[in-house]
Amino acid sequence: MTVRTPDPNPGWLSELALDETRSRVPILYVEAVPVRVDALGQVEHVGLLLRGSAMTGVMTRTIVSGRVMHGESVRDALVRNLEKDLGPTAFPQVPASIAPFTVAEYFPLPGVTPLHDPRQHAVALVYVVPVTGECDPRQDALELTWLTPEEILDPRVTDELEGGRGHLVRQALAHLGALS
Amino acid sequence: MTVRTPDPNPGWLSELALDETRSRVPILYVEAVPVRVDALGQVEHVGLLLRGSAMTGVMTRTIVSGRVMHGESVRDALVRNLEKDLGPTAFPQVPASIAPFTVAEYFPLPGVTPLHDPRQHAVALVYVVPVTGECDPRQDALELTWLTPEEILDPRVTDELEGGRGHLVRQALAHLGALS
Amino acid sequence: MTVRTPDPNPGWLSELALDETRSRVPILYVEAVPVRVDALGQVEHVGLLLRGSAMTGVMTRTIVSGRVMHGESVRDALVRNLEKDLGPTAFPQVPASIAPFTVAEYFPLPGVTPLHDPRQHAVALVYVVPVTGECDPRQDALELTWLTPEEILDPRVTDELEGGRGHLVRQALAHLGALS
Amino acid sequence: MTVRTPDPNPGWLSELALDETRSRVPILYVEAVPVRVDALGQVEHVGLLLRGSAMTGVMTRTIVSGRVMHGESVRDALVRNLEKDLGPTAFPQVPASIAPFTVAEYFPLPGVTPLHDPRQHAVALVYVVPVTGECDPRQDALELTWLTPEEILDPRVTDELEGGRGHLVRQALAHLGALS
Repeated sequence: MTVRTPDPNPGWLSELALDETRSRVPILYVEAVPVRVDALGQVEHVGLLLRGSAMTGVMTRTIVSGRVMHGESVRDALVRNLEKDLGPTAFPQVPASIAPFTVAEYFPLPGVTPLHDPRQHAVALVYVVPVTGECDPRQDALELTWLTPEEILDPRVTDELEGGRGHLVRQALAHLGALS
Repeated sequence: MTVRTPDPNPGWLSELALDETRSRVPILYVEAVPVRVDALGQVEHVGLLLRGSAMTGVMTRTIVSGRVMHGESVRDALVRNLEKDLGPTAFPQVPASIAPFTVAEYFPLPGVTPLHDPRQHAVALVYVVPVTGECDPRQDALELTWLTPEEILDPRVTDELEGGRGHLVRQALAHLGALS
Repeated sequence: MTVRTPDPNPGWLSELALDETRSRVPILYVEAVPVRVDALGQVEHVGLLLRGSAMTGVMTRTIVSGRVMHGESVRDALVRNLEKDLGPTAFPQVPASIAPFTVAEYFPLPGVTPLHDPRQHAVALVYVVPVTGECDPRQDALELTWLTPEEILDPRVTDELEGGRGHLVRQALAHLGALS
Repeated sequence: MTVRTPDPNPGWLSELALDETRSRVPILYVEAVPVRVDALGQVEHVGLLLRGSAMTGVMTRTIVSGRVMHGESVRDALVRNLEKDLGPTAFPQVPASIAPFTVAEYFPLPGVTPLHDPRQHAVALVYVVPVTGECDPRQDALELTWLTPEEILDPRVTDELEGGRGHLVRQALAHLGALS
């Protein structure tokens, strides 16, 4: 394997190369908590993706999440992953400032932080993104559900969130003044 | 004068009462830098209001600005002042988080801070607000001009901004990563 | 009463003038959540003030809080109120950026927001302030207690916080990534 | 080469492995703008590192900067790099919130953004860090210079900053309200 050969899909890695890379450096992600807001900008609903695992059959909830590719800007990665997970007609309002509201650190070992990812050490820039259009998740995310802040703070919901992301969603709601 | 009588226009004060109040406490304002952003959220243009003074005939540039009334929420004040200065079809994207990107302090005496307001000690919560619709300022703001970040950083433009707000607009552009 | 006479204590108002002003405009406050952090900047303890009411005998918990005076800068007000509530040897690390992590809105009527203040409509710029020295509250705050994030999130503690400020402290802990 | 063998220096990579990794994914950095602040938290001086290149003999200025290692938390990386570049007695005040004030994107090709790094695609979480102790940079950073905001905004200084970081320092000063 040589990495010097021009890559027909720059930024995309083979499974082997990705595994190797994951053992060497933290992998940079962007994540987004999709929200619906009212005319005053106040959050009314939070969008959660419900995803079934082909391997385990277990259903898990998650938020928009994906890698930043080599050579890709953070904004491009955010828009690409929003479209991947919410479809082409979601019309997300990508933040005008690139500063994330928080940084999420996922370690392979559970318990280091409230967040974990068995595949890797990942660091995610996390944004709150209002969406105004119709959301139509791609195939492998079976459903997008809009929940009120009250519904989402139910431990039965937050505990279903993959990798401890219930913690992140609570943090997002606090940031929006909707923790109550 | 008694303040106990129910006010037919709660929040609105007579000139006398406002002058007296201005001598007693800092007056709370909301201010907004209107921007047009591209699909990636990057600022393309900043909107400046051009206003003629009836008294002096001098034209000054400014941003969206107005008081928070007694009993009025910060979000309500922000939306009301956006509509007052940009018209009813501007469709502003009011921020989902109420934390301002900066706080602007105006003192009556010039030179204390880069900002001043001869009428009063004012403290403003300042937001960047993307607008997507058509802007149609009310009568006394003669014109809304959209300028690129490069155009706006021209000292001839920033120096025209009322009360030293060129400082604020530069700060907003830095916050958006568009200072260059 | 004339406000044109030079004030021997500028910024300080008679009870009458303050009451009148409170009926006219929102009153600007600064508030601070005092914290102790470890060498990595992670919050270890949050400081709560325990205050007894002379009138009711009820003990309430609160955070550092006070008005911004006429002519006083936000930074001066923050430092003055930190010293008033934590004493002269607290050595607070006043934030280098004046942007608050949130804005707290207190209305006279309970229920409008999670926060209320029967005396007035108040708007507070809220900061998290690490302190490194010894805290020695002034007389009318009987005690400063340092609690861990876990202890403070106990509803019995947060419910004791004056004016709904348990909401604010939870928001501060979320901002610090310590909501868990 | 196998990555499954336990690494005696986890997180540290051979030059070959690092080069390969740099061609695959964006590399995560932490960067810090060291500042001295007054009792009110206002920035008085910004610290710049002056570094001579062994290869070219050219002197360049920079800020605190370094990689986040595999398995290392962002806070640990920030503290480690502050100590590496400022010495063990700098006593940095690591931010209580992990949210950076901005995210810096360095691409190998100049001109994509104001920032570039010929070695790699790097993404840095950037913080402002007040330091209170004595700074004693390690050998390869020849000097730490404290400059006032006015001095640092001189284009002759900002243009000397490595990789376009003059842009970042201006952004930091704007964030601190010291752009003027």
